[in-house]
Amino acid sequence: MEALEFHKKFQGKIEIRPKMKISQKNLHLVYTPGVAEVAKEITKNPKNSFIYTSCGNNVAIITDGSRTLGVGETIAEASMPVMEGKAILLKVLADVNAYPLCLATKSVKEIIRVIEILTPSFGAFNIEDIKSPKCFEIMEGLIKRNILTFFDDHQGTAIVVLAGLINALKVMKKKIGEVKICLVGAGVAGYGVFKILKEAGIKRLIVCDQRGIIYRWRKGDNKYLREIARFSNPDNIKGDLKVAIKGADVFIGLTGVGQFLKSEDILLMRERLIIFALSNPIPEIFPEEIEKVTKNYLYATGRSDFPNQINNALVFPGILRAMLKTQKMIDLKLEVKIAKAIANLIPHPTKKRILPKIFDKRLIKTIENCFK
Amino acid sequence: MEALEFHKKFQGKIEIRPKMKISQKNLHLVYTPGVAEVAKEITKNPKNSFIYTSCGNNVAIITDGSRTLGVGETIAEASMPVMEGKAILLKVLADVNAYPLCLATKSVKEIIRVIEILTPSFGAFNIEDIKSPKCFEIMEGLIKRNILTFFDDHQGTAIVVLAGLINALKVMKKKIGEVKICLVGAGVAGYGVFKILKEAGIKRLIVCDQRGIIYRWRKGDNKYLREIARFSNPDNIKGDLKVAIKGADVFIGLTGVGQFLKSEDILLMRERLIIFALSNPIPEIFPEEIEKVTKNYLYATGRSDFPNQINNALVFPGILRAMLKTQKMIDLKLEVKIAKAIANLIPHPTKKRILPKIFDKRLIKTIENCFK
Repeated sequence: MEALEFHKKFQGKIEIRPKMKISQKNLHLVYTPGVAEVAKEITKNPKNSFIYTSCGNNVAIITDGSRTLGVGETIAEASMPVMEGKAILLKVLADVNAYPLCLATKSVKEIIRVIEILTPSFGAFNIEDIKSPKCFEIMEGLIKRNILTFFDDHQGTAIVVLAGLINALKVMKKKIGEVKICLVGAGVAGYGVFKILKEAGIKRLIVCDQRGIIYRWRKGDNKYLREIARFSNPDNIKGDLKVAIKGADVFIGLTGVGQFLKSEDILLMRERLIIFALSNPIPEIFPEEIEKVTKNYLYATGRSDFPNQINNALVFPGILRAMLKTQKMIDLKLEVKIAKAIANLIPHPTKKRILPKIFDKRLIKTIENCFK
Repeated sequence: MEALEFHKKFQGKIEIRPKMKISQKNLHLVYTPGVAEVAKEITKNPKNSFIYTSCGNNVAIITDGSRTLGVGETIAEASMPVMEGKAILLKVLADVNAYPLCLATKSVKEIIRVIEILTPSFGAFNIEDIKSPKCFEIMEGLIKRNILTFFDDHQGTAIVVLAGLINALKVMKKKIGEVKICLVGAGVAGYGVFKILKEAGIKRLIVCDQRGIIYRWRKGDNKYLREIARFSNPDNIKGDLKVAIKGADVFIGLTGVGQFLKSEDILLMRERLIIFALSNPIPEIFPEEIEKVTKNYLYATGRSDFPNQINNALVFPGILRAMLKTQKMIDLKLEVKIAKAIANLIPHPTKKRILPKIFDKRLIKTIENCFK
């Protein structure tokens, strides 16, 4: 109820404001006739809009509401509170203007076309709360059209997971090239984590979705799941979660399903285990359940009320700011570079602290440096 | 140069800001997990987005740059300075959040569809800097789809012209049902002024465009020009400006062409004449030229450096605010009602003062009352 009251009180969390004081005296500069001269300059070269208008510092956050936090597939309107929250973080942390645009269409083709049509007002786009695999099709369409886009749920989450994992392995004294990882969830975030783990050199990775372990030639898989099968699960084993988690050093949950992981599953893992239970708001497992079988574990969630919050808010403000400045698209190499740089911000990680806080003032600069 | 320097200094005139102070302490309300609860409430009923988000106070200003102030047909990017200026006035004068969206398409069908797709984030739309007749086709498409839209260049200008005319006639002691009006310009603004003058009861109206007087069965006219022919020019006269202006009490210029009206044309008009030379930045005639033949005239322009500025900024902030609040579409009856109410704000008009100033604090309330 507290959140409802809070939102009702403010009737929206963001507003559009002038950057300067306005009066009858400067109206001729702010508005007509002064703007005519500026319009002429931009007509000469559209890139001048980055000099004379806010475009170069504007991001559109785009959703169709098909994968809304806490609800799942719903109407676009319902995504607005998430989008406004995101816009606030972008402004407060990175001084970026973010425009939440909820689209009343579920068509991949239309979403791509709308974004393409909106390019004159924005320096970059952020894809938000769109379900898989359609979100990937949209990303591919935008990349093909050279439209600067970041997909936070996918790329942002992956970066923060890898950053957390690097330091978690350090704490638990394990090596990234040796550990076995059981990743459960192969949707928007899961597929992103799979890709970054592969890029980071993880060899022993098993990925599960609702239908169990993903393996080569499994029937009914789309091209993204087939890609996962091709580049994970080297022994091509089949089976359920219990088969997948056996002998794993690390469990990463990105399922959206709370509390399904049990102490008997934990028993199957190797000692000094790492659990990233990232389903939000209810994680795949709570510490009490783990502690039934071991005390030597490192635990992280997506929540702010536990230590080790793995939240993409650590990276999306800095990344979008750097993308706007450099007009450079992000790729897997850069994702890994950013993850390492963020991990390095905590030179002496502990079980209770593997990552910096969202309001850590070093984050933006650190990420910007990765784009150089 | 002053306007260019001004725009370069600020790199955009507007920004997106949070409405409240943000810290680690209220992050759970502003962002995850708090937003999930709000998303659920909106999923129950999309109208709840007006209670819990900024949507109900958000206007999108939409352009394709096809009729940009001072430039004419150009790229969408070039309209951004005008749009940002407009957004500022909407915030400062009416506390409305306006999102400037410049569209990289010239297709009527696509513009309508993009607006339809954007409806979840906005309480209303403002059409801006789109050329005629395509702007009218867009308006018709939006009205058909029940999308709350205001077309400021068209409807806003018309309202302010009528408001000014009411008081100008009062000053010059002429009656609205008796005067002859020569309106030159039948584009976005001209067609709007034609419609409101007809609704206000003007009987003797001649409208000209680049091809001369508009008359019935003139060849090559689109349906909007044919409508003008049907409801003006009762004697169906033909000819050029000199024929049109003969015996007129009022000249209204909305041509975009500066200084073409000469003192010999003024000589053809009736005494106690009224000149609205609204082409911007260079009006159709300057006072010196009029004064060659008469001293008894009332003169208005679109500029802020002459008395009697006829600027739609007098009405668009109040109208969009009232539309958002009432979710009511504007029609010709309401346009006339608003024009009369604004004229009434100056109970004793003079040759030098027929309209209130843009920053007149009574404007918003006056317009809002018209919607009741």
